[in-house]
Amino acid sequence: MAFIRNTWYAAAWARELREEMLPRTILGEPIVLFRKTDGAIVALGNRCAHRFVPLHLGRLDNNVIECKYHGLKYDESGSCIFNPHGDGKIPPGARVKKYIVAERHGIVWIWMGEASRVDRSQIRDFTEFDDSGRFTFVTGYVHVAANYQLIADNLLDLTHGQYVHPLFTNAAGPATMEADTSSEPGTVWAKFVRKNQYPNQYFQMLGYPKDQRGDHRNYMRWNAPGVLLLDVGMTSVGGSPSEGISIPTAHLLTPETLTSTHYLWGMARNFRLNDASFSAQLLETGISVFENEDKPIIEAQQRAMGASDDLFGMTPALLQTDRAALRARRLLERMIRQERGEVVEPHAIAGLAQEDIGPGAATSGDA
Amino acid sequence: MAFIRNTWYAAAWARELREEMLPRTILGEPIVLFRKTDGAIVALGNRCAHRFVPLHLGRLDNNVIECKYHGLKYDESGSCIFNPHGDGKIPPGARVKKYIVAERHGIVWIWMGEASRVDRSQIRDFTEFDDSGRFTFVTGYVHVAANYQLIADNLLDLTHGQYVHPLFTNAAGPATMEADTSSEPGTVWAKFVRKNQYPNQYFQMLGYPKDQRGDHRNYMRWNAPGVLLLDVGMTSVGGSPSEGISIPTAHLLTPETLTSTHYLWGMARNFRLNDASFSAQLLETGISVFENEDKPIIEAQQRAMGASDDLFGMTPALLQTDRAALRARRLLERMIRQERGEVVEPHAIAGLAQEDIGPGAATSGDA
Amino acid sequence: MAFIRNTWYAAAWARELREEMLPRTILGEPIVLFRKTDGAIVALGNRCAHRFVPLHLGRLDNNVIECKYHGLKYDESGSCIFNPHGDGKIPPGARVKKYIVAERHGIVWIWMGEASRVDRSQIRDFTEFDDSGRFTFVTGYVHVAANYQLIADNLLDLTHGQYVHPLFTNAAGPATMEADTSSEPGTVWAKFVRKNQYPNQYFQMLGYPKDQRGDHRNYMRWNAPGVLLLDVGMTSVGGSPSEGISIPTAHLLTPETLTSTHYLWGMARNFRLNDASFSAQLLETGISVFENEDKPIIEAQQRAMGASDDLFGMTPALLQTDRAALRARRLLERMIRQERGEVVEPHAIAGLAQEDIGPGAATSGDA
Repeated sequence: MAFIRNTWYAAAWARELREEMLPRTILGEPIVLFRKTDGAIVALGNRCAHRFVPLHLGRLDNNVIECKYHGLKYDESGSCIFNPHGDGKIPPGARVKKYIVAERHGIVWIWMGEASRVDRSQIRDFTEFDDSGRFTFVTGYVHVAANYQLIADNLLDLTHGQYVHPLFTNAAGPATMEADTSSEPGTVWAKFVRKNQYPNQYFQMLGYPKDQRGDHRNYMRWNAPGVLLLDVGMTSVGGSPSEGISIPTAHLLTPETLTSTHYLWGMARNFRLNDASFSAQLLETGISVFENEDKPIIEAQQRAMGASDDLFGMTPALLQTDRAALRARRLLERMIRQERGEVVEPHAIAGLAQEDIGPGAATSGDA
Repeated sequence: MAFIRNTWYAAAWARELREEMLPRTILGEPIVLFRKTDGAIVALGNRCAHRFVPLHLGRLDNNVIECKYHGLKYDESGSCIFNPHGDGKIPPGARVKKYIVAERHGIVWIWMGEASRVDRSQIRDFTEFDDSGRFTFVTGYVHVAANYQLIADNLLDLTHGQYVHPLFTNAAGPATMEADTSSEPGTVWAKFVRKNQYPNQYFQMLGYPKDQRGDHRNYMRWNAPGVLLLDVGMTSVGGSPSEGISIPTAHLLTPETLTSTHYLWGMARNFRLNDASFSAQLLETGISVFENEDKPIIEAQQRAMGASDDLFGMTPALLQTDRAALRARRLLERMIRQERGEVVEPHAIAGLAQEDIGPGAATSGDA
Repeated sequence: MAFIRNTWYAAAWARELREEMLPRTILGEPIVLFRKTDGAIVALGNRCAHRFVPLHLGRLDNNVIECKYHGLKYDESGSCIFNPHGDGKIPPGARVKKYIVAERHGIVWIWMGEASRVDRSQIRDFTEFDDSGRFTFVTGYVHVAANYQLIADNLLDLTHGQYVHPLFTNAAGPATMEADTSSEPGTVWAKFVRKNQYPNQYFQMLGYPKDQRGDHRNYMRWNAPGVLLLDVGMTSVGGSPSEGISIPTAHLLTPETLTSTHYLWGMARNFRLNDASFSAQLLETGISVFENEDKPIIEAQQRAMGASDDLFGMTPALLQTDRAALRARRLLERMIRQERGEVVEPHAIAGLAQEDIGPGAATSGDA
């Protein structure tokens, strides 16, 4: 399976871009990101056109990168604008690729496809991570040596929390997956609930009273290519999601290569906004959960698959709780084939027959 | 060259199996071994049928493994017996491979072939390593980044002791290889002797008087696929092997992959049975010899061969002391070809003509 | 691109050969070098003919190598002369390759081609590095994980000194490349000058007065396969190269594999001959420059090229200062094709058209 190209990938958290250039390989392409003096973000191919040395090893001065090797200078358009040698003529072909980027909601988005097809309306909403002041958030970065869809599978089946994450374990067992009744095209919801239970350690840490029952919810929203937002919350029994504590959590999965992923995560909150030590505790929690607990499992899974990304070629047994992950994989497969110009019949995606996991596997919104 | 499958491989020393699950890849297949509450040993495929996470990362409870990722449970037959999600139905295909194992003489044997062809009478005798009380033994494990036949070559030509192992060096030079006069089909003997010599450091350590001449013997017995037992002893000059000190030594070579091997070794003895500090000294000796001295040489040899296991494709020069190793390779090659259904003519194994190393290279018992 | 074989490669600095055997893989072939008791140097294939263990792991005694594994002995001709086993006959094929070597000017040269075509007159002149007493020199070795031609490109375009090496940076900018007016067949000159400038830190360190303008020169001489000598000097303005300070610098590039190189460097001088602490300072400078500054850049370049050595397949932009490097690559390409028996038309080397970099790219001496 290849990648979708005409889509937005999360290249970085905006706060990762400070004074230094940030090198990041995306879909196998070396890219350098930097912030201009006016604050706008630029993404260029990270290989000098002359001898292919990574540009981020050089110097950034007033929005111009000087290559470390022979001093060629590139402006923000990716054009070589200065050759210090010989007669100083700019040689033909002395440019690097310029990528379209957008900074929105604290995220640097990059468009990896054709410039003529760019569509900023496709950027998903992550208002919880902007500077509106309604939320405070912590963010992190994990490099995972696994295909990005294995991480999406993980996130679309949060029952794993019961087994993988001590903090998320409930006495009453794993969460229950609700039927997805939404019909927004291109969006997959995976809604997990634990009704009328005592808070697990995580919700206790967030301040939910230890001896008070309530309804937990984990509503995961997936959009291609690997852009997920999780609404985590706990209310009193029967309460509305608009009440109680809420921790919207972002999971942005960007392929570095077919078998490695930039995993950008963020945890926002709309309470204790100015409590820095609570922020530090949530940061530590995120690292513990994503870096120390999910990553080893997912990387072991990738090793078991060799260097392949063909999960279905290994004919996995399927559970009902896989249905959101399957819908996401099916949507992605269809998008990739359509982008290649293939005619894709509904339900033509091999290995993903609805009967494999029973009712609810395919819902409206897939075709 | 592939592997023989319809045969017993040594998966582990029985004492390696305590409370924890033991992961071990054999012939490229990931396997998890564990001991049941009744003491019997089980070997299962070490990849959950659902998402391929290694089962040994999970929890073993009352002979049932719970997968670390989503909590599927497998019993000792390899069947998934519990699905904590959705309606709890066990999905089709939710099972892992069950391997036939046998615990005998302190060794866990695993049958890698067809169940219908299993034959327990083929398990070789290692009574020196059981709990009969007649012997005490120490055991070790070495991971070697080399094809298992390179290790068998090493063990079937013990003249290398003179050069590789300071402890086994004799003033009078390397051991002499005796003609193999046995005719047990499928067994290769490599008998090395040093007659009427002073003990080397090893025999001195074992208690042979330093200033007293004697006859050393190293009789190595090989059986496919890589199962060797060495009778090490020293008697007075002209004495019978039944007298004097004896250190039966096991060498069990089990391919992890084509170019890596699980090397299980053991040293038994029928004297100073309850001397724990002597056991500790022998353990240290085994580690020094196999881990620190043989392993680096054999791994250097594998590196010189690249990722190949085709020794004869590199047309090595052959010595008379190679003849046991050549017989073993020839037997193995014939067994592999026969298992594949090929018709194998006697003496049809390329690169192993008898004239290469002179008389004795091929003896009865080969065909 | 393959390698030229009928040529001399620099295997080692002569002073690297002391009592120990020196293993060094050249053009992918494992070689062991040693110095005989009479001082002459020997190079043999570094793989025992019997079991392929590297000979340098064994013992060298009176010009004879004993293999570490089974004690076979090889003399300086590469023939096995002693077999300690069985009837002691030397088995057929028990020899290793003998390479032709020459020690000249402190360098051990090795001929990697056919013995019948060996030509000692092709060894380039490095008299600055012999024991004549006219020069003192320091030498070093850097292993570079990159194709050797990428290092030659580096050395034939010394304008990089301005950007890569703080010590070589001039206030007035990078050096200017002079037209190559020489016409010695098979030799490429890359002459860089900085006229009427203050000394950079390097020349100050060498003793040129800080406040006195002068003419800097860096005249690099390249010969196939990767044998370079740099005449570094600074004179008063308009002075002759024969006056003033001079630091002849050797750069000997020997492929270990297609993507790794033995980089032997040396810095000679004809002043302060007996100043050991100045020698130590120059040694430290060389390490700083080649090991710490050039090597990371060149290895980053190789990584950007994957495991390929096909620079032109990536269609680099070309600068006028590339013209010496291009001439060297063109010469090498022609030599390799001719050695293979191909008929090579002048100007038939793809991707290297003269118009790419303007006048001076191709000069006499190329055809």
